[in-house]
Amino acid sequence: MSDDAWLRTGIGDADADSISLMGRDVATELMGEVTFTELAFLLVRRRMPSAQEARLLDAVLVSLADHGLTPTVLAARMTYTGAPESIQGAIAAGLLGAGSVFLGVVEDTARFLERVLREAGDRASESELRAATERAVAEAVAEGRRVPGLGHPIHKVRDPRTPRVYAIAEETGQVGAHLRLLQVVAAVHREQTRRELPINGAGVAGAALADLGFPAALLRGVALLARTAGLLGHLAEEMEQPLGMPLYREVDERATYDPPKPEG
Amino acid sequence: MSDDAWLRTGIGDADADSISLMGRDVATELMGEVTFTELAFLLVRRRMPSAQEARLLDAVLVSLADHGLTPTVLAARMTYTGAPESIQGAIAAGLLGAGSVFLGVVEDTARFLERVLREAGDRASESELRAATERAVAEAVAEGRRVPGLGHPIHKVRDPRTPRVYAIAEETGQVGAHLRLLQVVAAVHREQTRRELPINGAGVAGAALADLGFPAALLRGVALLARTAGLLGHLAEEMEQPLGMPLYREVDERATYDPPKPEG
Amino acid sequence: MSDDAWLRTGIGDADADSISLMGRDVATELMGEVTFTELAFLLVRRRMPSAQEARLLDAVLVSLADHGLTPTVLAARMTYTGAPESIQGAIAAGLLGAGSVFLGVVEDTARFLERVLREAGDRASESELRAATERAVAEAVAEGRRVPGLGHPIHKVRDPRTPRVYAIAEETGQVGAHLRLLQVVAAVHREQTRRELPINGAGVAGAALADLGFPAALLRGVALLARTAGLLGHLAEEMEQPLGMPLYREVDERATYDPPKPEG
Amino acid sequence: MSDDAWLRTGIGDADADSISLMGRDVATELMGEVTFTELAFLLVRRRMPSAQEARLLDAVLVSLADHGLTPTVLAARMTYTGAPESIQGAIAAGLLGAGSVFLGVVEDTARFLERVLREAGDRASESELRAATERAVAEAVAEGRRVPGLGHPIHKVRDPRTPRVYAIAEETGQVGAHLRLLQVVAAVHREQTRRELPINGAGVAGAALADLGFPAALLRGVALLARTAGLLGHLAEEMEQPLGMPLYREVDERATYDPPKPEG
Repeated sequence: MSDDAWLRTGIGDADADSISLMGRDVATELMGEVTFTELAFLLVRRRMPSAQEARLLDAVLVSLADHGLTPTVLAARMTYTGAPESIQGAIAAGLLGAGSVFLGVVEDTARFLERVLREAGDRASESELRAATERAVAEAVAEGRRVPGLGHPIHKVRDPRTPRVYAIAEETGQVGAHLRLLQVVAAVHREQTRRELPINGAGVAGAALADLGFPAALLRGVALLARTAGLLGHLAEEMEQPLGMPLYREVDERATYDPPKPEG
Repeated sequence: MSDDAWLRTGIGDADADSISLMGRDVATELMGEVTFTELAFLLVRRRMPSAQEARLLDAVLVSLADHGLTPTVLAARMTYTGAPESIQGAIAAGLLGAGSVFLGVVEDTARFLERVLREAGDRASESELRAATERAVAEAVAEGRRVPGLGHPIHKVRDPRTPRVYAIAEETGQVGAHLRLLQVVAAVHREQTRRELPINGAGVAGAALADLGFPAALLRGVALLARTAGLLGHLAEEMEQPLGMPLYREVDERATYDPPKPEG
Repeated sequence: MSDDAWLRTGIGDADADSISLMGRDVATELMGEVTFTELAFLLVRRRMPSAQEARLLDAVLVSLADHGLTPTVLAARMTYTGAPESIQGAIAAGLLGAGSVFLGVVEDTARFLERVLREAGDRASESELRAATERAVAEAVAEGRRVPGLGHPIHKVRDPRTPRVYAIAEETGQVGAHLRLLQVVAAVHREQTRRELPINGAGVAGAALADLGFPAALLRGVALLARTAGLLGHLAEEMEQPLGMPLYREVDERATYDPPKPEG
Repeated sequence: MSDDAWLRTGIGDADADSISLMGRDVATELMGEVTFTELAFLLVRRRMPSAQEARLLDAVLVSLADHGLTPTVLAARMTYTGAPESIQGAIAAGLLGAGSVFLGVVEDTARFLERVLREAGDRASESELRAATERAVAEAVAEGRRVPGLGHPIHKVRDPRTPRVYAIAEETGQVGAHLRLLQVVAAVHREQTRRELPINGAGVAGAALADLGFPAALLRGVALLARTAGLLGHLAEEMEQPLGMPLYREVDERATYDPPKPEG
């Protein structure tokens, strides 16, 4: 037994005859017994999900897997163009753009909701929670910041993923504090700004994952897990029908070169 | 309608009211209807899997998700140490080490099997297939190359994942040409070298994925999808119990500095 | 001529006979005429540096190239262990850890200094600048935040890079507003906290680069340019004397597996 | 003193008062004393370059820094679009596409030349070297492989970087075995194929770096060092004049969605 406390790990272990993951035997207790989604839940939450929890997590992962030829997908396909022998590089490049502008919203929404819940306190009444929401939204609006989870450049009126997540969460009795609060946030924002912004798919995903007990700091990572599947689809397509090279060629032809003037 | 043939994509699309993925409506046909694993299959194979296929893919993804504190996990946790605000960077770093030494074996095994099958021809008899295998193994042995999919530094006698994949494939009637051939490869290798090397977990995963119709060029990517879940677990742990910083400190303390001599 | 304003670029262009970079002909005006450091200056600042500016930038790049077996170096070497055929992956992994904890300090220091200068105003007197500094430091201290650019876990009393940067800047007449202010910050911090924290190498680099007119948002990138050279050295060493695999083996052996208890 | 042989490093070290790099004191022997290019040479070759060697390395780095809006640059700018707060991710994404199709040519050329030199033997006469070259080129041509270092999609007749590298190498007495052989390779290829392919910039860079004694396995990394400077320029431009978001929008608008038909 080592006494390096920092070298304790609860994730995985292997010896000559067996492999363990989260205290389960991989071959006999996990393979063929749990879905990959259940395993992902186990890895993050350190316990197996109920069937209902797995169903909600599946729905969220499915909802986040792809959104067409986004910048991150284009980055991945361009990277594949240059280094087709290193598919890990193309996938990594496709994940690296998941930041404040794109998939970060999943995390940002959860953090916003968590903050309001924390400030309202554990035993907040409906009206206390609403008051805390009003303060948080007003502060964001006053500072010209977006309220995370609201609005979408394409789905201007309604993001189709949002009612679906709520419906599944309701059916399965999993509308928790975050999903509930997100609806309050949208309503308060509408009142304060007179603008109707729908709850977007990243926002509802963040709220649902927070209700599933996933820590906010990991939510961008969960979104990346979903995106990795989407990237596999795009790379499969890139192998058969390349977009990277022709897009480069077109950019190269159309671009105008307008260099700084050399100083005299 | 655009006439840019290279700008056709079959993966995803979105308009104001709906999001499509592989020709299905995400909100009504996929979310709550298919598991994330089924979606991954759909994205790569462009059709929905049967229940049996999904079960085999789930088992393979579960088998590949983690193998303890491997170099790629350490790279991810070290990267998190330096840039905890950019979890996408830590995950990307954890994927970039999936190359010829580690997860590349999944792909390499499938390629080896595909080559033997191709050289034996479509209508090869058992004995013709065995002869083609003998040639391919002999060539690898003669050139001092490893036969991909055989042997493991830890699981020297038996990799516990291997019989489990075969059992699930058998139960579900999915022992295809690649899984069958991999057993022939192991037997032939044993005869030629007098060394008993077990089929390893990456190898059996590669054969099973090839039997599921996944292209070899994507298999490393499938392994990376599985690994992303494992990395989420490790990063969840790193957030609570850091390994990156103490490992750095210990390396820094123990390392001996032995620089080149400045030339005179 | 295209009318896509967003497709104008001033960086580079090529036709059959020539390649341009920032309006210069690469073959006749840049190769053999400017150093790589001068080119980097040109690319960021859009003008050629004076000899003095190039000298200061060289000194800063040299100062940031390496700091031993840091977590980012270990991540790069571990990534090489798994994928030696994709050196781009190892270098990318080694850069991804340059975040808030490590090389981000270069940028953070410049931003802190810029904010104080902005708040003090363009025509601030010495005492107005000092007052603005006192407010900014007091705010950081009150909020329990570090003042970026001060203190170092190893160089507790004096970071040897700091006086050297100041000496070179002085010799060459390049002690600008940021380098000057950083000394005020260190003095004010000492007065307010009674703790003597030296200006660290990343901090002085950030101030010097800001004085060279580099935008703060790019400074982490400049540090990464420097680090890429250091990583080349480490990868050259890793090829001859591997550290990644033995470090993995030792971690694997010493680690204690302490999984979560499966719930009953 | 540790006895972990694998924990010896010759790159860098630091204690409370000093920082060492390759056995030199960073503050007193390197900063202000050597250029960044000289440091890069020292890190890879473990000795200081002569002025002539530094001049050639500078010219090569300058020649490789940028080639306009290439796929790797587009990947970096797209990644910045999504995650502007993590410039390390954008740079990493921009490096990950340096593979077999793009910057890998630097390395591939050096390996091709090294192989011919090895096969010809140390004391090969001119005509023996030519014979070895003829065999290697004939083999590549017969197998339908490109001879690395020859031909360029834009610079069809003459790559302007090539004569410049040769001129600088000649002026400074540094036309070594690899640069000389590359000219033989181009001549032999022309004779065998009746096609006039110019030596390209990546190829001549690979030969020059090999003559400088850089190991082939590191050459892609040297090219990445050069590219990092180019990426800094592109990211500086992206901050002021975004290309990523409008390019995404145009792709999104023009793309045709052509999904696989759901099976009946």
